[in-house]
Amino acid sequence: MSKELDHIMERAGSYASLPPEQLSAFLNRIGDEINALGAELISVCQEETALSPARLTGERARTVNQLRLFAELVREGSWIDARIDVALPDRTPLPRPDIRRMLVQLGPVAVFAASNFPLAFSVAGGDTASALAAGCPVVIKPHPGHPRTSRLVAEAIDRAISECSVSTGVFSMLSDTSTQAGLELVTHKEICAVGFTGSLGAGRALYEAAASRPHPIPVFAEMGSLNPLFVLPAALEKRADRIAKDLAASVTLGVGQFCTKPGLVCGLGGKTFNEFRRLFAKELSSYPGGKMLTESIEQRFQKSVGEVARFLEMKGPVALVNAKFQEFSAEARLREELFGPATVLIECTDMEELTQLAQDLTGQLTATIHAEPEDNAASRALSSILTKKAGRIIWNGYPTGVEVCPAMQHGGPFPATTDSRFTSVGTAAIFRFARPICLQNAPPDLLPEPLLNRNTRGIWRTINGELTKENLPDEPGPGEC
Amino acid sequence: MSKELDHIMERAGSYASLPPEQLSAFLNRIGDEINALGAELISVCQEETALSPARLTGERARTVNQLRLFAELVREGSWIDARIDVALPDRTPLPRPDIRRMLVQLGPVAVFAASNFPLAFSVAGGDTASALAAGCPVVIKPHPGHPRTSRLVAEAIDRAISECSVSTGVFSMLSDTSTQAGLELVTHKEICAVGFTGSLGAGRALYEAAASRPHPIPVFAEMGSLNPLFVLPAALEKRADRIAKDLAASVTLGVGQFCTKPGLVCGLGGKTFNEFRRLFAKELSSYPGGKMLTESIEQRFQKSVGEVARFLEMKGPVALVNAKFQEFSAEARLREELFGPATVLIECTDMEELTQLAQDLTGQLTATIHAEPEDNAASRALSSILTKKAGRIIWNGYPTGVEVCPAMQHGGPFPATTDSRFTSVGTAAIFRFARPICLQNAPPDLLPEPLLNRNTRGIWRTINGELTKENLPDEPGPGEC
Repeated sequence: MSKELDHIMERAGSYASLPPEQLSAFLNRIGDEINALGAELISVCQEETALSPARLTGERARTVNQLRLFAELVREGSWIDARIDVALPDRTPLPRPDIRRMLVQLGPVAVFAASNFPLAFSVAGGDTASALAAGCPVVIKPHPGHPRTSRLVAEAIDRAISECSVSTGVFSMLSDTSTQAGLELVTHKEICAVGFTGSLGAGRALYEAAASRPHPIPVFAEMGSLNPLFVLPAALEKRADRIAKDLAASVTLGVGQFCTKPGLVCGLGGKTFNEFRRLFAKELSSYPGGKMLTESIEQRFQKSVGEVARFLEMKGPVALVNAKFQEFSAEARLREELFGPATVLIECTDMEELTQLAQDLTGQLTATIHAEPEDNAASRALSSILTKKAGRIIWNGYPTGVEVCPAMQHGGPFPATTDSRFTSVGTAAIFRFARPICLQNAPPDLLPEPLLNRNTRGIWRTINGELTKENLPDEPGPGEC
Repeated sequence: MSKELDHIMERAGSYASLPPEQLSAFLNRIGDEINALGAELISVCQEETALSPARLTGERARTVNQLRLFAELVREGSWIDARIDVALPDRTPLPRPDIRRMLVQLGPVAVFAASNFPLAFSVAGGDTASALAAGCPVVIKPHPGHPRTSRLVAEAIDRAISECSVSTGVFSMLSDTSTQAGLELVTHKEICAVGFTGSLGAGRALYEAAASRPHPIPVFAEMGSLNPLFVLPAALEKRADRIAKDLAASVTLGVGQFCTKPGLVCGLGGKTFNEFRRLFAKELSSYPGGKMLTESIEQRFQKSVGEVARFLEMKGPVALVNAKFQEFSAEARLREELFGPATVLIECTDMEELTQLAQDLTGQLTATIHAEPEDNAASRALSSILTKKAGRIIWNGYPTGVEVCPAMQHGGPFPATTDSRFTSVGTAAIFRFARPICLQNAPPDLLPEPLLNRNTRGIWRTINGELTKENLPDEPGPGEC
């Protein structure tokens, strides 16, 4: 292993970031090459993951769109946050030097592919797209659950590398998918950051391995979440049937294997709640079931459902757990993710219990509130608590289906992720893999293009504290004055 | 201790972030109250640190300016990076929900005061100012080197709290300054981030304590740096005397106790270099010496100089170490910081050795190049290497004197800091203490002001990917259409 890794890292270390146009074209080309894999990719991936062709076709579109979104971000160029504070030679008591700053690539990034999104969070997924966009070379640890899919996508990337004449160091994939190989990757001295999507145990282990390196590096691990959903009284009164139906669809989407699956549903006990529970159970019971991603994921799911057996209201292809607030508080297992088609329905006696439940939550990727205008006071109170607990709050919707856009935040306080200040979905994901570099009194011919006086790229820059697309006046050349 | 800490954290936990105008006024008021301490602050601080009144007066101005700069950043408001992607209900195959995102405070921040900047990196220093500006409450672990200074500044902050009617949870100072108290602070469950300036050993220990918490938190430790300075041949030829003079001043500034002190000076051997060494030694020898911050810092300095005794060219109030490239490569101690009035002068045989030296460096806060146009090729080669090693590259200047401005980067790859993606000086320091929160389909009356359709604060926002100060059209009210 370590010989392969040393070879990979040597190649990666030699990769110099590309000019924006070429990088942008390269990202688009990866998208084209993935599309060109056509039906073969979908059928291989279906065989390996048991996910439906419709779902995989949608996921492929998202994966390609993600690459195109980053291609456009890089082409436009303002993401590098260029800042210029011009020299003030006459300032007293001390003159100010010329100070210019922009973001540059962090260095080689290790990306751990996820099992549950074999395209969008795997070899050419969001972590890879954002790291490449930042100018970093990527080393993939593929997920053992879909080796042929990984190979097809890696080959598509290799074709894009060759077509766009990019140095081959920009992308490598480990042949060894063992835990040990992953740890060696994270602790390799040339690796500068890690993107990971998977279990809490594995994410935490990588985080600790990275923190105990001689030179620690950041780990962006997205690890799981209960994604609590609160149904407030007026919403329940007005839309119990609709919520029961849509929620059941969200819980069972992709055989319950979404990191944003609503795994905890909370409401106030009473007649309406009982009716909602009945409707919800009925909707769930019509779920035909589905094959999980891998045998071992299926086994873990059955085991975890077994651990909460005494709270099971129904158990068929989908598990519905029923408990009261006190039981939820007392039983730690109810507060852990059930990865698969299962959810936990909690009945609270009053708003005090409901807000206490929210208060007691650990970090979450998402939290959802179903509320009508009459629920406003409770909705406001919950929203204020949940802002501290989750990265994304959703009103009157469902957390599955993460939009890839500038305003998205897919991340949240630990244990949802290891760093709540960053997102793994949306254009802001690029900031995980960049660092600022400041150039003081640099000779103009050593300045990178975005920091030249003339704003040749037409990007937004912060000049003396003001955001602008203007040029700075040119330096007088020889003979001018 | 832990009783005091629990009490402090309970107060801090109850602090809710202030509206921007009030927060801005509060930061300015802290500045006013520090100025109002007048001559007493300077004289007490001088007694405790042995730093000169002129230096401390300058440092006080910087500290107050820093507070005012963050006050203005908060008042202006665009730093929260508001992003809005409007709903696209008719999009196929799936509609897009309304998604809005902004930065919010991370939560209580622990700040470890530094010894060497008793005002600008201490109780009301850059870490405190940026954490307060982000909306976080601050808990200070004061430095035992200047307890009365710390108390005076803490009292000034307390007066600002009272004058501005801010909740007292916003600021607390530990009475216990022991290492144990610091560790208890970092591992307290309510602490969300740590700012630290000090030694590599202490910074690393805090980093590891934070990483091994049940819920890990980020640590921004600024730990030290050699701040290499390269003098290229033509620069040496033209300005050896000027460089010798100014460099000697930078090395001995504040008794060599700056984190940006140039601790490593490298050039190509030969007649000009010999002449430069002679001039440099002569300039250093006229340094009258000065008292160091504390007894123990003085002792550590003497001990570390003793460890490189066989390389000493001169040893008086200032130590000049002389070595060849090979010796520098072989002797680890030469590559560690000498905190105090000392610097290491390295003679390289050729450009290959000089660039190899640069290549072998670990992470640095700064790196400096002295070059004339004739040195351009070498300057370009060095600059490209140093960009990977340091947070700030300076041409034809000296690293001491860190400008507080939007374009500043004070931070660098490990071991200069624990996270090269952030700065501890300049307005960007605020981003250490904030995280994004995303609101999806939020009812307008639950949106925070910066995310409303109407841009009441006139801030820059990214709407559908475009930076703008425009409003979004108002929702049609009842009766309108």
